[in-house]
Parts: sequence; C-alpha cells; structure tokens
Amino acid sequence: MKIDGTAFRSLWLDETDRWSLRIIDQTKLPWAVEMPRLTTLDQVAHAISAMLVRGAPLIGATAAYGVAIAMRADPSDAALQQAITTLSATRPTAINLRWALNRMESLLRDHPKVERAEAAYAEAAAICDEDVATNHAIGRHGLGLIRSRASAGRRVNILTHCNAGWIATVDWGTALAPIYLAHDEGIDVHVFVDETRPRNQGASLTAWELGKHGVKHTVIVDNAGGHLMQRGEIDMVIVGTDRVTNAGDVCNKIGTYLKALAARDNGIPFYVALPSSTIDWTISDGLTDIPIEERATTEVTTMTGRALDGSIATIRIVPKDSLVVNPAFDVTPARLVSGLITERGVCAASAAALSQMFPEYGRQNAV
Amino acid sequence: MKIDGTAFRSLWLDETDRWSLRIIDQTKLPWAVEMPRLTTLDQVAHAISAMLVRGAPLIGATAAYGVAIAMRADPSDAALQQAITTLSATRPTAINLRWALNRMESLLRDHPKVERAEAAYAEAAAICDEDVATNHAIGRHGLGLIRSRASAGRRVNILTHCNAGWIATVDWGTALAPIYLAHDEGIDVHVFVDETRPRNQGASLTAWELGKHGVKHTVIVDNAGGHLMQRGEIDMVIVGTDRVTNAGDVCNKIGTYLKALAARDNGIPFYVALPSSTIDWTISDGLTDIPIEERATTEVTTMTGRALDGSIATIRIVPKDSLVVNPAFDVTPARLVSGLITERGVCAASAAALSQMFPEYGRQNAV
Repeated sequence: MKIDGTAFRSLWLDETDRWSLRIIDQTKLPWAVEMPRLTTLDQVAHAISAMLVRGAPLIGATAAYGVAIAMRADPSDAALQQAITTLSATRPTAINLRWALNRMESLLRDHPKVERAEAAYAEAAAICDEDVATNHAIGRHGLGLIRSRASAGRRVNILTHCNAGWIATVDWGTALAPIYLAHDEGIDVHVFVDETRPRNQGASLTAWELGKHGVKHTVIVDNAGGHLMQRGEIDMVIVGTDRVTNAGDVCNKIGTYLKALAARDNGIPFYVALPSSTIDWTISDGLTDIPIEERATTEVTTMTGRALDGSIATIRIVPKDSLVVNPAFDVTPARLVSGLITERGVCAASAAALSQMFPEYGRQNAV
Repeated sequence: MKIDGTAFRSLWLDETDRWSLRIIDQTKLPWAVEMPRLTTLDQVAHAISAMLVRGAPLIGATAAYGVAIAMRADPSDAALQQAITTLSATRPTAINLRWALNRMESLLRDHPKVERAEAAYAEAAAICDEDVATNHAIGRHGLGLIRSRASAGRRVNILTHCNAGWIATVDWGTALAPIYLAHDEGIDVHVFVDETRPRNQGASLTAWELGKHGVKHTVIVDNAGGHLMQRGEIDMVIVGTDRVTNAGDVCNKIGTYLKALAARDNGIPFYVALPSSTIDWTISDGLTDIPIEERATTEVTTMTGRALDGSIATIRIVPKDSLVVNPAFDVTPARLVSGLITERGVCAASAAALSQMFPEYGRQNAV
C-alpha cells in the first residue's frame, strides 16, 4: 500500500546489494518512518523478537529471509539448523513463523550446499509474493461482506483490534485488506480502531496506515467498543489472528475475546481474516493447546509517544511497587466467530467447514 | 484509610480556618500527594469537572461542601440557585451529584438566610459521615461474599475496574470496601486491577491506594481480564457504579460491560457495590435513560506519567490526523449482574429485589 503516495511492501531486498533485508521499523511508527537494513541472522531474529516487524504473516516472511541471509553467510547443515532454531525462538504464538521455517527447512535440507543461498532467497521471495496474492484474495472475499452492508450508499462502520493491516503482512493486510478494497471502490467505509494496549498497535500502526491511505477512521480506547456496539454504531468487526485451530478457535491480540463477546451480545457479525497458513491443523482446542506469550511488564508499566518538544519519550504509568502481568494474546472460542475470511472464501469457524474449505489439510489432519 | 500510616478521608475542612475545603488532587496521583485548599464555588466546581476529585460518592460530598462555601460567601436565594446550577453542570452521569445537590437545596430553601451557611456545613458533614457509615456497611456485606470463597486459606482473586476505592468516596470506598475488610481480617485477597484507559484510574488510583494499605494486587491492561477469567485466575469481579436504574442496570466506567460479559461467559460472579444514593429510582432502562458523558479527546490521544528524569510529562500516543471519540461510561444490563452490594445487604439486580431492599424508594417509584 502507499505511504505518502509511494507504494511500499513491508519488507524488501535492498535495492543496491540485492541480498540484505530492508524493513520498516514498526516500533518507531507513527512518529518516524525508518527503514533499517538487516545483514545478519541475529539482526533478523532481533527484529522479530523486539517487534520491529510484527504481525503473523510478516513474521513468517521475515524469518524466511533470515534463513536466506544465514545461508548466504554459511550454507552448512549446522548453520541451517542454527538459523531455524534461532528464528523459531523469537516469538512463541504465531503459527506462521513455524510454517515458514518448516517450509524453508524442508526445501533447503535436500539442496546441495552451494545452491542453498540462492534457493533460500527464491523461496523467501515466493513466500512474500504468495502472501500478497493471498491477502488480496482475502480482501476480495471480505469485500463481499462489506458490500452487502453498504446498501444505498450507507456508511459501513467496522471495528478492528490491534493491527492486521498491510504492515502486519507483506502487503494488503488480512483484516484491513477488505477495507482497503472497499475504500478503493468508493464504499463509504469508516473504521473504529481499538488503541490496543499495551503496545498500542491500533493507535500507532492501524490508525497510521489507514490515515496514509486515506481511509476514514476513529481511534477509541479498548474499553469503548462494547458501548459503541450497544449504541448501534458498529456494523461488523473484522480482526486478524496469530493462530487458528482446526476447529476454528481464534488466537489474537489480547482483548479480541472481549470484543467477540460484545459482538455476540449485540448481534453484530464478528469476522476473522486469515491466510490458511495461520491455521494450526494439529490442534483443535485453542484454550488448552495454544501457548500464550507473556511479554515484558514494561509494556504495561510504560508508554512511549511524542513529547511536547517533538522528541520521543517513554513515561511510567503504573506505581513502582505494583505487580504487573502481561499476557499478549487471548483465545476467542469458535462459537463466537461469525466467519473466517480466508483466501479461498468465507467459511464457518468449525472443523467441518475448515476441512471442506481446505480438504488437503483436513485430510492430513484426520490421518 | 491510610497513606503511609496516617489515616485520611478524601476531603475534610481545613484544620486552621474550619471552613475551606481540603481535597487530595487525584490528577496528581500516584506521583504526588497534593492537598489543595478550595475557597470558592468556582474552585469546587473546577475540582469536580477537572476530576481533581472523582468517584460518584465523593463528587456528591464535594458538591455539598461547594454549596456550603457558596452560602458562606452569599446566603441569598440567587446565590443558592447559582451554586446548585454551577455544580449540577460539572459532571452529567453520576446520580450522587444530583442527589447531594437536591438534598442541600431542599434543606436550605426553607432556612433563614442567616442560618444557611451553618446549616449547609452541618449537612455536608452529615453527608460525609453517612457516606463513611454506608461504605463500611457495604464492606461488611461484601466481605461475606469474599469470605465464602476463601475456604481453607485459599487465595481469593478479585478483578476490579476503574477506582471505586476510598478515594472515590469519603472513606472505605464501595467496590474496595469489602476487600479492605477482608485484608484487615487476614483473608489472603489479591486484586487484579484493570488499568482503565483512558484516564488510567485503575493503575494510578486503585493500585496506589491498595499499595498504600498493603493489599496485594497486580495491574493488567483492560484487554487482559477476559483471558484471565478463561484461565480460571479470577474468582469474582467487584466494581463500583455511577448510576444504577430501578431495574438494576449499571452505569460505570467505560469497559465495565466488557468485563461483565466475560464474567458471565466464564461463570464468574459479577458484583456491583453501591450506596443506595447511587440508584436513580426515576429510570429503569440504563441503555436509553442514562446520559453518557463524552469527555475530551485529549484523554485518549495523550498519556501522562513520570518521565525518566522524575518529572511529570504528557506524551501524545495517537497520530495527529486521526479522529477520536471518548465516551466515559457504559451500561451493563442487569441480566449480567450477579448481585448488588448495598449498605442494607446483597440483592439481585432487578426491580423486584431493589424494591424489596428499599421499600421506601420502591413505593415512591411506583407512585
């Protein structure tokens, strides 16, 4: 999508050397648009764990390039294993990370060492291109849901949580892909953006990217969504996800579950947009089978933003002697999900519907 | 309750002049404990509207002293009317404000002008003493609910939202009164404190006052409560309220409704603690009949805390071009409330139960 009129993906190979990785440092948004260059496995691993890049699909694509960068430096079996191990450990929850690393490892294992770097770069590029195509397909399927609400030029109000936009993917986004397509075809779409504490990815990333693309939006605190639903101000909810079980349970940014409960209580459809690579076909019960990342308490106790003098400042907002816990994700049970928007179409959040939509995996899972 | 070992109420008459009002400036907590002296009606009105004092019961008590201060300066009918009008306009949602002002006006209207100031101070003091007695009674009734969960020395984990502690009242608090009593009698009680965006009254006020009294607590973002309930880490929810309808609908700080939904979804009791002065006997449907205050968008777009150098700093956390809305309260329908903890006992959140618990008002309402 565009930043100030120029088209970008959220990661790309450096134009001059064609092997180092350029990313947008998302910890600096919305206050600065910095595009650091990553040249080592450790830099890539750090970019993922410190969330310079985040979003399940983008983590997978970045990790794939991390493997490629490692293979360029040393194509040995030991280096391959080291790259997979290091990158696997960066984030525990997103399934796409494991998916991308498995794909890279399977491919490279059987390649002669001299060809590994080239093959790895080609595969990483393929993962990126597939991600863009997948997200565009998700957008088209979700667009149908938005269009059906936009009768007679009526504004469609959509709530989203966290950031599942183009900067959470290689391009287009998942939850925001239908919204960008709706906006681009002239539907009067308006997005309520949950600020999404503790890291504020809604206020700092979603609001930023929607604003840069010209999509109308309003930032609200995470507490406000239920009230707006009660007042009839929200037509539908669309969120992304970090992992979906084969039965349709949805793991996503902490707080998603609360919005799903409110949507159900108010008869508002609650959709989850995802590439099928986000589905973990090996598990069915999201509440028991998905590890929930506990992140640093400083994410809760401090807040970073722009000071009056324009500098970026971090302030403390919790008393020093108070304990803090910081679970990063929660699980929305399938029963609260109106539909899953995938690259193949919209289906119910159930084992039966997922198996029917993805028979090749459904069969594999049944074995 | 105590601050560093010294007992305080949250407002009192200045010890030297015995007529000006001292309050704790809650906008400065938890970083500084300042106790400004208010000497004019306008200062009192500003203290309420700018939320130097907040919390439904404390707003009522402060407004009562505001009338007394106005009567001391000018006991005329016009000045009385002016005081009532000015103070009524400070905050729209809390019913206690109207209740306290009605009580002061009814009393003073029929008093000779020369006696009005003295009568007003006496009535304001009575309102304060009654509030303390009421909250202590709420605490005793709520204590029974906590005690019943504390079998065999097991820790009781309680979630609360916003601040309904002693600094939201004259003393003891409403939601926190049972917790202080449980703590004081040796029950192993632990409080999960929602930070409560946008003003962070949970992190800055509830965590502060629990910490000062020695009650174990853990601060979480507002998004995390549902997840903790799913994991079985919360035994009960206790919140305060700004207004309860005669049918038991509960208006409280924005986000309360989301926690009530999660409590119901997980079979966890959801209690609301309130003095009966918080009940608006004139309305039954909270969703249609309670005006919801819209507060300044700067509460959402900025955050105030302590900078690394120890100074208090305000930072911007939302991109400049994004729209923002900031509804301050939401309504939790009675069907989601397990019980109302009042000064007379615990009752169901229903018109029948409330009328039975408060027959004098129930009858009045039926007329």
